[in-house]
Amino acid sequence: MREDTALIALDWGTSSLRAYAMGEGGAVLETRRSEHGVMHLPTGPGIDTPAAAFEATLQGLCGDWLTAHPDTPLIACGMVGSAQGWREARYQPLPARASELATAMTVIERPGGQPLHVVPGLLQAGELPNVMRGEETQIAGVLQSLSGAGQAPTRLLVGLPGTHTKWAWVEDGAVVRFETFMTGEIYAALSQHTILGRTMVPGSPHDESAFARGLRVAQSALGSMGVLSTVFSVRTLGLTRQLAGEAQPDYLSGLLIGHEVAALAPALDAGMPVVLCGEPALCLRYATALEARGLPPPDIRAGVTPLGLWRIAQAAGLTRIPGSNLP
Amino acid sequence: MREDTALIALDWGTSSLRAYAMGEGGAVLETRRSEHGVMHLPTGPGIDTPAAAFEATLQGLCGDWLTAHPDTPLIACGMVGSAQGWREARYQPLPARASELATAMTVIERPGGQPLHVVPGLLQAGELPNVMRGEETQIAGVLQSLSGAGQAPTRLLVGLPGTHTKWAWVEDGAVVRFETFMTGEIYAALSQHTILGRTMVPGSPHDESAFARGLRVAQSALGSMGVLSTVFSVRTLGLTRQLAGEAQPDYLSGLLIGHEVAALAPALDAGMPVVLCGEPALCLRYATALEARGLPPPDIRAGVTPLGLWRIAQAAGLTRIPGSNLP
Repeated sequence: MREDTALIALDWGTSSLRAYAMGEGGAVLETRRSEHGVMHLPTGPGIDTPAAAFEATLQGLCGDWLTAHPDTPLIACGMVGSAQGWREARYQPLPARASELATAMTVIERPGGQPLHVVPGLLQAGELPNVMRGEETQIAGVLQSLSGAGQAPTRLLVGLPGTHTKWAWVEDGAVVRFETFMTGEIYAALSQHTILGRTMVPGSPHDESAFARGLRVAQSALGSMGVLSTVFSVRTLGLTRQLAGEAQPDYLSGLLIGHEVAALAPALDAGMPVVLCGEPALCLRYATALEARGLPPPDIRAGVTPLGLWRIAQAAGLTRIPGSNLP
Repeated sequence: MREDTALIALDWGTSSLRAYAMGEGGAVLETRRSEHGVMHLPTGPGIDTPAAAFEATLQGLCGDWLTAHPDTPLIACGMVGSAQGWREARYQPLPARASELATAMTVIERPGGQPLHVVPGLLQAGELPNVMRGEETQIAGVLQSLSGAGQAPTRLLVGLPGTHTKWAWVEDGAVVRFETFMTGEIYAALSQHTILGRTMVPGSPHDESAFARGLRVAQSALGSMGVLSTVFSVRTLGLTRQLAGEAQPDYLSGLLIGHEVAALAPALDAGMPVVLCGEPALCLRYATALEARGLPPPDIRAGVTPLGLWRIAQAAGLTRIPGSNLP
């Protein structure tokens, strides 16, 4: 580990763990990856509690970092802070900016080492509550990357496409509202566990026009019956030989993403700037959906989680680089 | 089989076959049931073609009827007329009343016996085509049961709840439009193959208030983000201890049915009379959803398929009861 490492940052999700050695300005000096996500922890001699499994995973992935610089602070986000994680980090209510996240971190003491600071998830209370865990740090990373480039608008909509896509309304650096769409998981369930999958040919090459057709249906008057109804057209267009099995996966994807984006119309059509953050191919699908509404191409970011962890650690006063950020 | 049998009517679906011996006025004189649906045909010596399997099933279930009265006409509806059936009965375009269905029947010659007349399905052409097969006969049965009671309105909306729920707009006895909602199948896929199922306790006693809560969310401004979003509240209400696992199945059911009924608002709120037809417990859920919108309790019918087959057979001139319906 480099001498100028100021923070060890962990993105610890369900299926994997990424560790970042970070230096001044949030620069990533070194990255490591482990398959020991929260749902795939190691077992073996001496691992007799969940805490021991988390500590063993941490030591296994970056024990040399911890030994070489025992005073480097540690921060983590993601499912490591869930009820199934190392310790539950309570959800933080809205509005929430990096400073609130920093104040609300859960501190896990580690015998013989620095404590681990775990970023809280976000909770939007109300009749339909909403939660996120991990995405709050991505949003902080997006804001950090925009402010670094001097581009941070006062109000923006951050879209985080994924299995459960999140859309966050950000005002003056604070998340003030967010919504969840189970689009990715519902796509998988429809494709694999309903009659629609019987005629879909999986693994087909990307069919841009089928995707655009799905978008158009969902975002036009044709979509007015809603997604429970329009998805049946995957089958009927097939039966009537108007849509080949190879085109059906992308048509269904366009339908679902189109319905999701149509639901966001009030915010989008009011001209809120949009930043997408996530897996680039999936972000491009959402960008296409936005452009199909006549909106300008959105900014697309990826890999911002370490930057978000840096921003929150900085707000917590953890990143004390000599001469730059003394307490 | 009774001497006054005028029609042998078959409701031959994917998973089962029902045979009805019918007499004057569409009275069901005798009913039999076989597990040999279109997807579960028998195999064995002498069954070397699909046609042989269909004929063997028919002989096995009501060979004595066919022998005793070899001149009794035969009619069938359902998946027996699909591409996977005995022979494909082409879809009939809209508008369609019983007389059009009767004219368009596919006739399967049966050596040594009466031919089998197979009712066509319905096809609604257009950018989002729609198909039904079997439900067209249920609709005919609903209309027959209403006209028998002198209650047939000029315009009505017929709802057929099921795995794929159909809603048909009927004017002057003709289906002029229909829509399909995959609500039942999507409910099963969400419950069994997404994260929502992890906290749902299946087999819980019916929770009327959880169902009503789901309806209210879907049919109010809370539902404006659409079903891809609202279904996530099954999980978040659980996480925030506002909805027990035992209540989650009915809450999800209320959400989905509520979104479906909300999509039909233009027709429903215009005051079109509604008849529901299907499995009574499921029809009651839809009736509750309609009443939650402030609509009057809908008429509920069940078991009308033989009556629909009778109406179509009559329109085709197949039911020649002495003295009542001579050609």
